[in-house]
Amino acid sequence: MHPLAEKVLQGDVRATGRLLRDIDDRVGSWLDALSDLHPYTGKAYVIGITGNPGAGKSTLTDQLVSHYRRAGQRVAVIAVDPTSPYSGGAILGDRIRMQRHALDTGVFIRSIATRGQLGGISRSTADSVRILDAWGAGVILVETVGVGQDELEVARLAHTTVVVMAPGMGDEVQAIKAGILEVADVFCVNKADRDGAHSRGHGAGMLDLARETLRAKENEWLVPIVKSIASRGEGIGQLAEAVEKHKTWQQQSPVGLARQQMRAQGELDVVFRDLLIEAARHDLATEINAATHDVYERRATPYQAAQKLIAIFRGNPAR
Amino acid sequence: MHPLAEKVLQGDVRATGRLLRDIDDRVGSWLDALSDLHPYTGKAYVIGITGNPGAGKSTLTDQLVSHYRRAGQRVAVIAVDPTSPYSGGAILGDRIRMQRHALDTGVFIRSIATRGQLGGISRSTADSVRILDAWGAGVILVETVGVGQDELEVARLAHTTVVVMAPGMGDEVQAIKAGILEVADVFCVNKADRDGAHSRGHGAGMLDLARETLRAKENEWLVPIVKSIASRGEGIGQLAEAVEKHKTWQQQSPVGLARQQMRAQGELDVVFRDLLIEAARHDLATEINAATHDVYERRATPYQAAQKLIAIFRGNPAR
Repeated sequence: MHPLAEKVLQGDVRATGRLLRDIDDRVGSWLDALSDLHPYTGKAYVIGITGNPGAGKSTLTDQLVSHYRRAGQRVAVIAVDPTSPYSGGAILGDRIRMQRHALDTGVFIRSIATRGQLGGISRSTADSVRILDAWGAGVILVETVGVGQDELEVARLAHTTVVVMAPGMGDEVQAIKAGILEVADVFCVNKADRDGAHSRGHGAGMLDLARETLRAKENEWLVPIVKSIASRGEGIGQLAEAVEKHKTWQQQSPVGLARQQMRAQGELDVVFRDLLIEAARHDLATEINAATHDVYERRATPYQAAQKLIAIFRGNPAR
Repeated sequence: MHPLAEKVLQGDVRATGRLLRDIDDRVGSWLDALSDLHPYTGKAYVIGITGNPGAGKSTLTDQLVSHYRRAGQRVAVIAVDPTSPYSGGAILGDRIRMQRHALDTGVFIRSIATRGQLGGISRSTADSVRILDAWGAGVILVETVGVGQDELEVARLAHTTVVVMAPGMGDEVQAIKAGILEVADVFCVNKADRDGAHSRGHGAGMLDLARETLRAKENEWLVPIVKSIASRGEGIGQLAEAVEKHKTWQQQSPVGLARQQMRAQGELDVVFRDLLIEAARHDLATEINAATHDVYERRATPYQAAQKLIAIFRGNPAR
């Protein structure tokens, strides 16, 4: 077994961090380590926490960490959200609050840069989930901003996705447009920290909206609505309970089982797509340079150039 | 020549809309139409307008449309931003304001859904740029939310990217994390519409930040800072002037020329990546199903399954 993989299985936090970096940077025998750990994965429960900036996702995540720690579980946090204090994008107060988990060796915090990775963020997140699963996390909390294709793809890698909204912030319209509602397994209406900041509305419109969604999903899972005030720790138990119910439902219902298959499909798709592009870019570096020049000089359309490259990649350049 | 392509060249708005939908849906001989139009493209100037929700991007875009119309140019707007009134995510006031361009046949407005497209949003945007260029747009304004990989990729397809920020909204920290600053060719500090909403700060911190960026770019392009109050039409002329200067600089400086080559590279990359994945998914549908099952049953890791699929795609399944 890969030496780092062995240490990960022993719950070594430093080795786990090291392996995660190696995977992101494609350094050393990272793929062997991943393969070695595979038989030890599949135990962690992955909870997606998504929603617009300002909805209070990080505070909620923080409270959930405490909740699952009290229940004796190892907990990992993966922050894909650039506005999350876990990822560094926070005001000082948030940062200090997060410190309370910093010395707890039963908590692993990992932030994923939303750009500049070699692979996409979906794959980086999926790899992190696998490693932290092997490290021994019982629960993995994945925090994302609820916009963009990448973020929705990440949400789809979770067993249960919690969509967090603050009432009266106009989140509703944006949520519909961004398709957040479709990925919701649990709604959490969270009162944000700052007093009076979102006094109007009280979330009535959003609840109506949620009920519309419930109707559409009638024969499947009834998306529960949990109210919380994360800054005061209120509603956290109910939220964890709603997640637990969704977990049980998935294990028992045919629709829930189908969703687990969808999850496997998502896992494969993310890796397949990334490796395919990496292989093509690597093997065709010269041809891609020439094709770029053709496009720049307007001798070929991007479509013509791309089709030629694909034919070469498939070993059939005469096509 | 493809009949729709012919009508596009005549400036027909309906035919142009029809062809754009055909391309998104991969209906009919869309690829032939794109190829036919290629010789007539390369004339439009593409301006990216990016920034966080609430910075006033849509109002600014609206004012720029009027500005370029007054200068006698045909103008196209491509809204990739789910919060943009052009894309439907707006409060009533915004919608009504936008109407003033609705009857102008010299303005074409196109919104790109941020998900649910067959291809990625980058490719859909790039295709729209090509078609609207052939339609006769002198200026194409592409509005995006400044977060996520897709959005940054879209920004890179522009000739000039304007990053819009509202002072005192804490946009600075988020901008750094999301990498918006790196794509900025012009900063626009825009006072948002709602009175008093962003009274504190006055953008001083942001301007400091901007100057940091300027220093880093010393030998290249000095990113100018333009102040505007878009809701009152103030600063629009200066903004257009800053864009014009950036255009001239690109035509004269070696760095600017290199950037145009980067743009061609981006155009090719987006199409190549999309077509490659489409071809693989299409040709390997059966094999992908089987591989998904293997991953679900934990008989293979996603990496093992993906590598096997790639080998088959390359006509070398024994590898």
